[in-house]
Amino acid sequence: MRIITISREFGSGGRELAKRLADYLNFDYYDSEILTAVANNSGTDENYIEEMLKNHGWQQYPITYRSTLTSPIIHTNKINLLLQQKQVIEEIASLGKDFVIVGRNADIILKDYHPFNIFVCATTESKLKRCLERAPKGENLSEKELLHKMKQIDKNRSKTREILTNSKWGQKDSYHLTLNTTNWEIKELVDVVGTFANKWFEK
Amino acid sequence: MRIITISREFGSGGRELAKRLADYLNFDYYDSEILTAVANNSGTDENYIEEMLKNHGWQQYPITYRSTLTSPIIHTNKINLLLQQKQVIEEIASLGKDFVIVGRNADIILKDYHPFNIFVCATTESKLKRCLERAPKGENLSEKELLHKMKQIDKNRSKTREILTNSKWGQKDSYHLTLNTTNWEIKELVDVVGTFANKWFEK
Repeated sequence: MRIITISREFGSGGRELAKRLADYLNFDYYDSEILTAVANNSGTDENYIEEMLKNHGWQQYPITYRSTLTSPIIHTNKINLLLQQKQVIEEIASLGKDFVIVGRNADIILKDYHPFNIFVCATTESKLKRCLERAPKGENLSEKELLHKMKQIDKNRSKTREILTNSKWGQKDSYHLTLNTTNWEIKELVDVVGTFANKWFEK
Repeated sequence: MRIITISREFGSGGRELAKRLADYLNFDYYDSEILTAVANNSGTDENYIEEMLKNHGWQQYPITYRSTLTSPIIHTNKINLLLQQKQVIEEIASLGKDFVIVGRNADIILKDYHPFNIFVCATTESKLKRCLERAPKGENLSEKELLHKMKQIDKNRSKTREILTNSKWGQKDSYHLTLNTTNWEIKELVDVVGTFANKWFEK
């Protein structure tokens, strides 16, 4: 089984890279929204996960459809949710299918599977530009507000990693590859990063 | 003209990667020892540099041969030497030939040429192993002494960068690619990194 984990700074294009990479390599794809929804709605029912995995991953099922399948679990706090997600990630891996996963410290959770671990970053200017271009409809944050949001989100990611894994977020030697997407179109990077990952899997 | 700059942590294999990459791409190759020797022995005589560049770079000429060509310059301090090296680097670039250069903050010095900038790192354990395997004959440092040496060298590199360029050494978004060589043979990385660099040059 081949696993690629992608950690990323907010606004760096890491999620787009992950999606494109999954398509390029024909791997399943998971991101944090999917995992959160699943942990929220399904608990960690393996049959449910397997059901969802048919047809190349969960991303093809609307969240409402997913939530009808199983009974909800009530989360008392954030740590609970994170632990749920961890369990979901472990169950995904236990299915034995190749996948790309974004965020959730999956590189640490899945380390025994020897995943290929990528960190995606960019200059602040580049991330800001990306966020402004791709802002959700109705979100009209000023540049200053967006900068604050970016900082907050990355600070949270960093904190969560430290609490859960006792290792530092974004630390260069924790990842095989740290990619700076500044001045690149994400699609330009897909084949060469895919080649890099394949080299790792062939070792 | 295509330029690749390689910055690296001591013991990470950055220099080996640079040499192999230069061979693979048929670029000239420069490292800090060469630049130091040239700055020490030649000043910045352009004819001299051109002479040295025939036959794929300076590395093929012993330092003793180089030093007979020109008169020595006396350096009063380290900053002087660094400025000399900077000038040498600029003159190399002005010759218009493709090259790979290791260290000396060449990524900043040459930024107007849009070089492809790589930072090479590894875990402390991996760097230590590499240093022990490749210790110069007669150097019998203990593991503790070697760790101290590694730290000192990287601290100096970091300090020099800050003084000369007002930017931080090893900061992820300063380089296009940050490579972690842990668990790789350097030669395994050459073609994929070369492909990455070529993508950049084709943009």
